[in-house]
Order: sequence, then structure tokens, then C-alpha cells
Amino acid sequence: MTGATSPMLRRLNAQAVLDALLDADPAAGLSGADLMDATRLSRPTVHAVCDELIARGWLTELDALRPADSSRPGRRARVYAPLPGAGHVLGVDMGATTVRAAVADLRGTVLGEDAAAFRHDRVPAGERIAATRAACLRAAERAGVTALLGAAVGVPSPVAEGRVAAVDDYLPGLAAEDLRLLLDPLPLAVEGPVLVDNDANLALLAERWAGAAADADDAVLVLAGERLGAGICVDGRIVRGHRGRAGELGFLDLVAGVGDTAAVGNLARRWGTAALGRPVRAEDVAAAARAGDDRARAVLRDVARRTARVLAVLAVLLDPEVIVIGGGAAGAADVLLDPLEQELGALTPRPPRLVASALAERGVLLGAVRAALDDVRPRLLDLAPA
Amino acid sequence: MTGATSPMLRRLNAQAVLDALLDADPAAGLSGADLMDATRLSRPTVHAVCDELIARGWLTELDALRPADSSRPGRRARVYAPLPGAGHVLGVDMGATTVRAAVADLRGTVLGEDAAAFRHDRVPAGERIAATRAACLRAAERAGVTALLGAAVGVPSPVAEGRVAAVDDYLPGLAAEDLRLLLDPLPLAVEGPVLVDNDANLALLAERWAGAAADADDAVLVLAGERLGAGICVDGRIVRGHRGRAGELGFLDLVAGVGDTAAVGNLARRWGTAALGRPVRAEDVAAAARAGDDRARAVLRDVARRTARVLAVLAVLLDPEVIVIGGGAAGAADVLLDPLEQELGALTPRPPRLVASALAERGVLLGAVRAALDDVRPRLLDLAPA
Repeated sequence: MTGATSPMLRRLNAQAVLDALLDADPAAGLSGADLMDATRLSRPTVHAVCDELIARGWLTELDALRPADSSRPGRRARVYAPLPGAGHVLGVDMGATTVRAAVADLRGTVLGEDAAAFRHDRVPAGERIAATRAACLRAAERAGVTALLGAAVGVPSPVAEGRVAAVDDYLPGLAAEDLRLLLDPLPLAVEGPVLVDNDANLALLAERWAGAAADADDAVLVLAGERLGAGICVDGRIVRGHRGRAGELGFLDLVAGVGDTAAVGNLARRWGTAALGRPVRAEDVAAAARAGDDRARAVLRDVARRTARVLAVLAVLLDPEVIVIGGGAAGAADVLLDPLEQELGALTPRPPRLVASALAERGVLLGAVRAALDDVRPRLLDLAPA
Repeated sequence: MTGATSPMLRRLNAQAVLDALLDADPAAGLSGADLMDATRLSRPTVHAVCDELIARGWLTELDALRPADSSRPGRRARVYAPLPGAGHVLGVDMGATTVRAAVADLRGTVLGEDAAAFRHDRVPAGERIAATRAACLRAAERAGVTALLGAAVGVPSPVAEGRVAAVDDYLPGLAAEDLRLLLDPLPLAVEGPVLVDNDANLALLAERWAGAAADADDAVLVLAGERLGAGICVDGRIVRGHRGRAGELGFLDLVAGVGDTAAVGNLARRWGTAALGRPVRAEDVAAAARAGDDRARAVLRDVARRTARVLAVLAVLLDPEVIVIGGGAAGAADVLLDPLEQELGALTPRPPRLVASALAERGVLLGAVRAALDDVRPRLLDLAPA
């Protein structure tokens, strides 16, 4: 049926069918009629493409008892789905104090995940890399996966040309390293380059994929936790800046009169040291505030006041539809979002919608998975399925 | 030669040839070989398209003694150019205290221009509209033009859906008006809608077209004069925001600790009142500073200090390649740019390139001309030449 079609057109058709199946509801699969709707291809072309993709190991035909195709009474409709396990990607969040890794299938369903925490945010580069490798391996083991089609790593730093751009700011000793080489000694074969991107950019990607910014083309994600960073999306595209430094809020504090830092983590450590004689994590402050501790509540009001000034700058300059609060602060949304909304409303005449990320601390990780998928999907047909 | 070509393809070919000629060096015109290079069309197609465009009144064939086409010895190369006067557009800058109008040909060459100043920035809406209409008519008279293919108007306000969005902030009484209707009673026929856009966005468009940001895809233009506003360009596209309010710096002052205003105009009025007993314009302060007046120099340092904080916020958040200073402040660049660079360097570790607009106070006007051209050019072939 496709004998008269050029190789380029056949490839475009195959990519369109595969994309439609990978983006569809996982359980049900898609019938030939569904695929005709999704791709605007003819019935014979859809089925010929599916037969070819089945032969190549990307698809399977489901035995589901779908209702008969109404245009062909008496015949059972053929229903297709991506072959589970045809390919996998790795997403990594190399946070300052926590590293997370996830292995997902080509739909983005996470099959195995692992995390490791560091004692503090200044661990040596070697220890950080060893922990990252170990987390990747455990995530792959849990997923039952030994080969990857792609991988992406999020770092709490500006990224320029695949390298950590901030010298020693957040990942001591790693600034000069090419993180793309990081995963090389793993017994996991990664096809193609390992992507490296800024954590806030990846967290925003996750919100655009499956979170609070799914329908907003003009959106900002503020990653508030151990550091303060923003991902900015304008007209549906992530803003990177001339040197990959767009959204670096840490320094904005100085400019915008917020004080020396608005990072929740630092404020929590200070509060813990003052109140308990030891530094604590942001979650501990939120828990104490929930339990009625006045000093913890005062810390949160302080966090809200400082953070709101940064959000107001973002709101006035960029006029986004929504600002998503991600990172550690999202876990304290029940005690933080109301004061934040009040402060922001007092600072700006027309505040954007303010929401807490439902992905919370997994946002960067899921964004890394999405980035790996976005990288791999257009070249899937050049690769071999697992 | 083009008998076998579909109407859609013929139209695309004609648009490509017309665009190449309108963007080319005005005096020389383009030969068939030049047009083949620019459009990737074949020689017969290029000449057939040009013959058709000549017949329709858009092009002319130049008699210039160009060197013979080297591939066809002995034959003079045919050289084409857009017909002067085939079409015209109107650009308008409805500034707070000055209105400017320019009529340009389809290359963007301004053929007639006019300006009018208001006594102050709170003139009644009726007076403002009457002055704008009069300036448009005089510009058209000077250009010898009675019909327009398109028009664009810049206003010192956010613009949403073609309307002035800021209620009574800068153009009292005009917030509720649809400025697109403004030019209707003119004895100038305008084909299609009159565009309305924010002044800073248009000034940035002009810098991208023919100014300091011609080669920078990530650029910011700060319009500093009677008000402070920014145009933001990311990846070559103007950032508008969800409600058309991106780049509204006037309010940013409050957030970023700059004080109640960083607008040069206000500071000048205050200095004038204090030093001379009467409000003066920014140019007067710059002139006094040049002449060695210490109080005027102190005002400029104050302007630089406040403005630099706003520029630093823009630089940190957006990481642009270049920030262009436009508006009235560009005219004081010789006394303002050095202190501004010093202040910005002290505030940000990696300041972007800082340049003064060479278009200065005509930036918004030329941006409006460019916006009208961008609007008209893709539908030229649906219109009749003058």
C-alpha cells in the first residue's frame, strides 16, 4: 500500500503514528480509526505503518475487545499500543543535598526510582558523582532495565553548552566537569548524548507536561528550597538567555532589596540554629508552624515577604499567567501559600495566579525524564528497540 | 514557463521575489542572478514572476548599466527594483508630551515626517487626538501620499487587544478609546486595521531592524524619558506577557527598591524646580551637566544609580546579550552611559553590553513604521499598488 511513498514520507508517517500512540492513554491503545483522526493519514497507510512498526519491535497489537469498527460492521477493529519495554530513558536530579534518579518508558511512566541524601550541600565532587551513579543504577535495577535510549540531568546551576556554568556555587568541584561524561562508566548503555540542564528549567518542563502550567504558555516556575531559581516560559518556550543564565534569582535578591538571600533552606538553618541550637530543614520549619510554633510562623512570614518581592519582580516584568511554586517550598504550601499570596497582592496591582506544584520535590526529576524523552522521541526510528 | 505551477506556489514565488527586492539595497536593484541567489528559484521562474509583478504595478525594470551577466556573455542582465510609490505605510508615536508621525515607502524609507509637542503630559484626549491627526496629515502631505496600505501607532502604555490597557496612567481619557478608530476620520484611506502597540516594544523592533540590536536575538530596550518602560526580545521574538503587560518597568521601581520613580523626566522636573525655580526637560539637565553644573551632574548620577538597579534586575533575570538605552535618555548618552555602566558593573557580576540607541527619540516612530510594514508585507499581493 505504501509502495509508491518516498522513504522520507514513510518515515514522517511512522513518526506521526508512533508519537500519537506514545502520547495516548496507556491502557486502551488506539484503533486504526483513532490513529486516522490523530495523524490525518488514510486507513491503508495507518495499518501499513503499524504493521511495519510491529515488525521493527516498537508496537504491539492489543487483543482488547474493542467495539467493532462502525464503518466495517462485523470486523473487529485492530488496536495498537507501544510495546512495553521497547525503550527507556533516565532522568536525574543532582540537587544540592539530594540526588534522585528515575528510569521511565517511552510514555514517561516511571518504572524505577531512587534517591540519596547528602549530609550537607558541600560534599566533594567525587562523593556526589559516586552517589549519583549509584542512584542511577538502583533506579535501573528497579525498572529491570540495562539499556537506555537517552538521559538528562538537572543541576542547581546555570548551564551553558552542557556544562555547569557557576563556578563552585552549588556543586563544588563539578563546574569544570562535563556532566555528560558522568554516566559513562555506568554499565548502562546510553544512546546519544546525555543532556544537562538547569534544575528550574526542567521543573518548569515537568509542570508544562503534567503539572500546574499544562495550559499556560506564559508561566514561571520558582524553585524555592535549598536555593532560589526560576524557570521562565514565554509563548510556550523556555527562556534560556544569552549565556544560559536566565532565571538566576539567587543574585536577584541583592538587586531587588530582598536581603542577602531568599532561599528557604538558609532561613530554615538560621531559624533552627537560633531556636533549636542546630540547623534544620525547611520541612521542619513548616511542621513546627503547623504545630503552632510562633517563631516558626514568623520565619515563614519572613520567607513569604522576601519571596513575594522576587515574585512581584517576575510578575511585573514578564506578566505570566501563572507562577508555580516548586521545590521544597511546595511541600509547605499549606502554611506558605496564603501569606505569599497576601504579600504578592500588596506588591502588585494585578498578581498572576499563584499555585503550588503538585510534583513538589520530584519536579526536577520528572522534568529530566521529559527532557530525555523530548530528545529521544524524534530520533527513535533511527534506534533499535530494546 | 510557470504554466504548470499551482496558484499557491506562484503566489509564494511572487512573495519571495518581492520580499527580496524590498529588503535589498535601494539604489542598485537586483538582477535575475541576485534574485535566484536570494530565493533559490530557477532563472525562468524569477523572470516570469518579475514580469508578472511589473504588469501588476509592484516592480520596475531598471535601465542601470549593470555588468553583463557572466553566464550569458553579450546580454545585458535585467535588473529589477520595487516601483517607487507602489505603496506606503504610516507610523505614529503618541508620546506623553510629543506626537510624531512618519509616512514611509515599502522599504521603510521615510518620505515625510511631522511632530507636535504638548504643553504637558496631561493634555485632554480630544486635543491629543486632534494633534495626532494633524501630524499624520502633514507627514502624508510632505510625502505626497494620500493612501496608505497600513498603519501602526505606539503608545506609552501596555496594550491589550489593540486597546490602551493602563487606565489614565499616561494618555488620560484614551484608555477606553479604540485607537484603531483614531485615524478613521483622516482623509487617508488605510487598508486593513491600524495596529496599536506599546512604545517600548516598537522601539525594540526598530533597534532589531536598523539599530543596536540588529544581531542580538536576546535583547532588552529600556525606554528612559518621560516614563521608564522596557521592550524584551527572547530568541528573536518580542515578549508580550499574558495580558500585554510584560516590560512595565514603571511599577518595578517600587519592587526593586529604586524609589518612587526612575523616570528621567520626573527627576529633571524636580531638579529644574529646585535649581531654576521651574520644571525643565531631561535635555536641559544633560546640557547643564555638560556645561559643568554640579547639581545637574548629581541628578544624572542619581538617574544612573536608580536606572542601573532596574537594568540589573533585567540583566539577572533575562541574561540578554545587549541592553539598549532608548528614548530621551539616549540623547544624554555622552554624560549618562559611563556612570550607568559603572553602577551596573557594581551590581551584576556579568553585565550585558550596554549601548545608547542611535535612533534615540525617533525609535518608537521607526518601530511603528516597521510594525506597519511587517503587517502589510505578507498581504501585499492581495492589495492593489498605488
